[in-house]
Amino acid sequence: MTPIDLNADLGEGFGPWRLGDDAAMLDIVSTANLACGFHAGDPEIMRATVRAAKARGVAVGAHPGFADRAGFGRRRLPVGAAEMENMVAYQIGALSAIGAVEGYPVTHVKTHGALGNMCAEDLELALAVARAIRAVDATLTFIVMPGQATERAAERLGLRAVREIYADRTYQDDFNLTSRSEPGAVLHDADAAIRHVTRMLDEGALISTSGKRLRARIDSVCIHGDAPEAVSMARAVRQRLEAMGHTISPFAAGSVSR
Amino acid sequence: MTPIDLNADLGEGFGPWRLGDDAAMLDIVSTANLACGFHAGDPEIMRATVRAAKARGVAVGAHPGFADRAGFGRRRLPVGAAEMENMVAYQIGALSAIGAVEGYPVTHVKTHGALGNMCAEDLELALAVARAIRAVDATLTFIVMPGQATERAAERLGLRAVREIYADRTYQDDFNLTSRSEPGAVLHDADAAIRHVTRMLDEGALISTSGKRLRARIDSVCIHGDAPEAVSMARAVRQRLEAMGHTISPFAAGSVSR
Amino acid sequence: MTPIDLNADLGEGFGPWRLGDDAAMLDIVSTANLACGFHAGDPEIMRATVRAAKARGVAVGAHPGFADRAGFGRRRLPVGAAEMENMVAYQIGALSAIGAVEGYPVTHVKTHGALGNMCAEDLELALAVARAIRAVDATLTFIVMPGQATERAAERLGLRAVREIYADRTYQDDFNLTSRSEPGAVLHDADAAIRHVTRMLDEGALISTSGKRLRARIDSVCIHGDAPEAVSMARAVRQRLEAMGHTISPFAAGSVSR
Amino acid sequence: MTPIDLNADLGEGFGPWRLGDDAAMLDIVSTANLACGFHAGDPEIMRATVRAAKARGVAVGAHPGFADRAGFGRRRLPVGAAEMENMVAYQIGALSAIGAVEGYPVTHVKTHGALGNMCAEDLELALAVARAIRAVDATLTFIVMPGQATERAAERLGLRAVREIYADRTYQDDFNLTSRSEPGAVLHDADAAIRHVTRMLDEGALISTSGKRLRARIDSVCIHGDAPEAVSMARAVRQRLEAMGHTISPFAAGSVSR
Repeated sequence: MTPIDLNADLGEGFGPWRLGDDAAMLDIVSTANLACGFHAGDPEIMRATVRAAKARGVAVGAHPGFADRAGFGRRRLPVGAAEMENMVAYQIGALSAIGAVEGYPVTHVKTHGALGNMCAEDLELALAVARAIRAVDATLTFIVMPGQATERAAERLGLRAVREIYADRTYQDDFNLTSRSEPGAVLHDADAAIRHVTRMLDEGALISTSGKRLRARIDSVCIHGDAPEAVSMARAVRQRLEAMGHTISPFAAGSVSR
Repeated sequence: MTPIDLNADLGEGFGPWRLGDDAAMLDIVSTANLACGFHAGDPEIMRATVRAAKARGVAVGAHPGFADRAGFGRRRLPVGAAEMENMVAYQIGALSAIGAVEGYPVTHVKTHGALGNMCAEDLELALAVARAIRAVDATLTFIVMPGQATERAAERLGLRAVREIYADRTYQDDFNLTSRSEPGAVLHDADAAIRHVTRMLDEGALISTSGKRLRARIDSVCIHGDAPEAVSMARAVRQRLEAMGHTISPFAAGSVSR
Repeated sequence: MTPIDLNADLGEGFGPWRLGDDAAMLDIVSTANLACGFHAGDPEIMRATVRAAKARGVAVGAHPGFADRAGFGRRRLPVGAAEMENMVAYQIGALSAIGAVEGYPVTHVKTHGALGNMCAEDLELALAVARAIRAVDATLTFIVMPGQATERAAERLGLRAVREIYADRTYQDDFNLTSRSEPGAVLHDADAAIRHVTRMLDEGALISTSGKRLRARIDSVCIHGDAPEAVSMARAVRQRLEAMGHTISPFAAGSVSR
Repeated sequence: MTPIDLNADLGEGFGPWRLGDDAAMLDIVSTANLACGFHAGDPEIMRATVRAAKARGVAVGAHPGFADRAGFGRRRLPVGAAEMENMVAYQIGALSAIGAVEGYPVTHVKTHGALGNMCAEDLELALAVARAIRAVDATLTFIVMPGQATERAAERLGLRAVREIYADRTYQDDFNLTSRSEPGAVLHDADAAIRHVTRMLDEGALISTSGKRLRARIDSVCIHGDAPEAVSMARAVRQRLEAMGHTISPFAAGSVSR
């Protein structure tokens, strides 16, 4: 029984608004990445989501993004490394405090949207995120994409890294996701997603759209929570992982090492 | 030489905007209360202010307020204890993280504006703030007004409390500040403020506008940083305190006990 | 065939978020009140909703609220008449411009949430709203609740007024809605809502929870669009109104006079 | 006596914050471009600035920018033509309504910051702005930079255009401003700014940093209001223009034609 983590981005509401079915997703995943009030989330939603995760033993981590609610953190903003370090530290600290009042410590950090894309591509920005993590709590795990600058930054600063693959996104030859603006970037069919995940786990590699095998350590599978088909796809992916002989458990429980 | 603390609210800008002359105030005070991004402040301003305070040995603390920039946190919002606990924890955590990346730990918490007024009056809300402080970091000091609910909440939860008086605000018989909407609520003249502070320190009591002596422990004097006359008044108050034989030093250095 | 208007509050999303099923509601109502970017709404959503309304011949109007997205405009803010006039004028002007680029003029104004409650109770604030309407476009209709300050303000300034009743809210003896914090304030059952509406239209009066008949002119029925049961209740109300012999048509078409 | 217009961007505060000395600038310029609540400004500040402008006979216009207060509208956001049209229409409508309640109609539109730079470079975006202006009020004047896409868009849609030069900014050979990130982009010295303006007006051309004369119609001179030296530079520029024989008057008074 090989343990593997299943993670999703949750708590992506704001004020009166909600995205996705967080309660259903928390019954499926082992790890939740929580919006921290910048691109989505507010103290109430953060607290409620931490509490719901705690009740199910789902690990919670910070999912920092740009302070751009209107754009849901998906628009690139021209920020330097210092600004990146500050905004990420702020968000990790905020969620950590919410975890503290709920008595459920946060375990990790995963970057969101355009902020995440920029860090994946730019080592200076990725190092800024890694410095923020290390300063706020050096025991936090950094969820990264294999082959990206965030992975190198985690290694360079001695952070515990977890490598994730996306169940519903395809890859290019440079380990990067196919851009959402391209056709075939997102898999909307659960069967296709399951085949995609299965093959990557079996081969221990990302499979690019050109058919290349890109060797990669894989510790976690990310499934999206906000698409209409999200919950049923997440459930199908979990069942398939279990059928393959995996135990679904948060990486925080020790499935990975530095 | 009796040590006394001199505190001011700083870092009250946002984006391109600034309030007051923070650099000048940081040369005068021993303790700075920093806006945490809700009523004012953003990660950049928070970091820069923490850095400037660190360079001068000025203690920094969180100054949480309502998420209402347009109203500068001065408008009461109908929040319950749970909501209060979450919003205050969030802000303390955020500033603590900024302190961590700068390598300069935060020492205390002081509530801002309408949030502060509501907590001073309502023990349930004050206890919510005290719980947030204790959960995030039980060693943080809670700056309170003598005779208010916040003082009782600090005592009940075993937090270290610092009692402050306002140099430029007058008091009512119930230990409360005269409301800003009443005439005589704010002293704009440095000499009047100095006489006010001197008398309260000499007598170990608040002096109300009706002339009553309200016995109170006084550990810190608060001076405002955003009025036009702020810097010169702050300087004059500091000189007077030193002439009275006080050493100006952050309470964090041990001038108070639980 | 007596014409009657059926109105709902729509366009209440923001950025990535949505509330309710606007497309379904636009197939049922004759009039839509659109959030204008303060408590909800943004230029994209406003434009899309105006376009969808135009395609169905549904009248569109401004639904101004407080600039408080986190509280969805449901929290009272301490504003004076001048501030009220400015914030309402701003929002009417903004939606009017969106109507202009879409080539579909706005027809009316209806206040939202806490801003609306405050104006219903306070004639000074209601007159401020009426002045804003008159200044921006004196031909706009003001949707008001019978017996409230907004109705008197519309009359005093010579604005065309439309009186609405709520299908799913109960009334007190003073013509006011039962507060949401009281039991029985909201009817969740379509049959109960239909009986409530039918009786009020039949008797030409509001019926209070104590059973009082409060004579009132009724030009429009408001149905909410954001509750889970909203669409089916709206459909049922419409069918009942048609079965009673009413034609559903926007008041803008001439069903009311000054 | 050749009339010329002197314009400045004003009303750039938000909530408790202010930028620049608007009262002083309003005594110097003939035209004010007002922030409309997106990158800066709010209904209160807009109303107060319109009133102050009216009292001095200074023309007021909309200065639409991106909804990015933290970045003061100076960060490029990836928006398409439809989104541009909506956000510009919204802001023009909002200020027009504030002008209406004050009884002082707005006369023009000038784009702000990154939104303005993007429109100056991209004809599709510039046409979207021009369509918004024409739809909301086809009599509004469009302040543009000579040789830019905004000028062509104004001509193509038949809008009245006013061409402006910047007193304190230098030009490149392609009629564009030198980017703020380059040395020499901004003139901080009043004498240098006056020589710059004088030469451009005398020669009827922009003068690029390479010394090229770029023939251009010049109807207005823009001076910035938020730099420390802003007021004294503005005063000096105005005095020089008057000494050259110009009358300072808003273009709205008829100094330009379509």
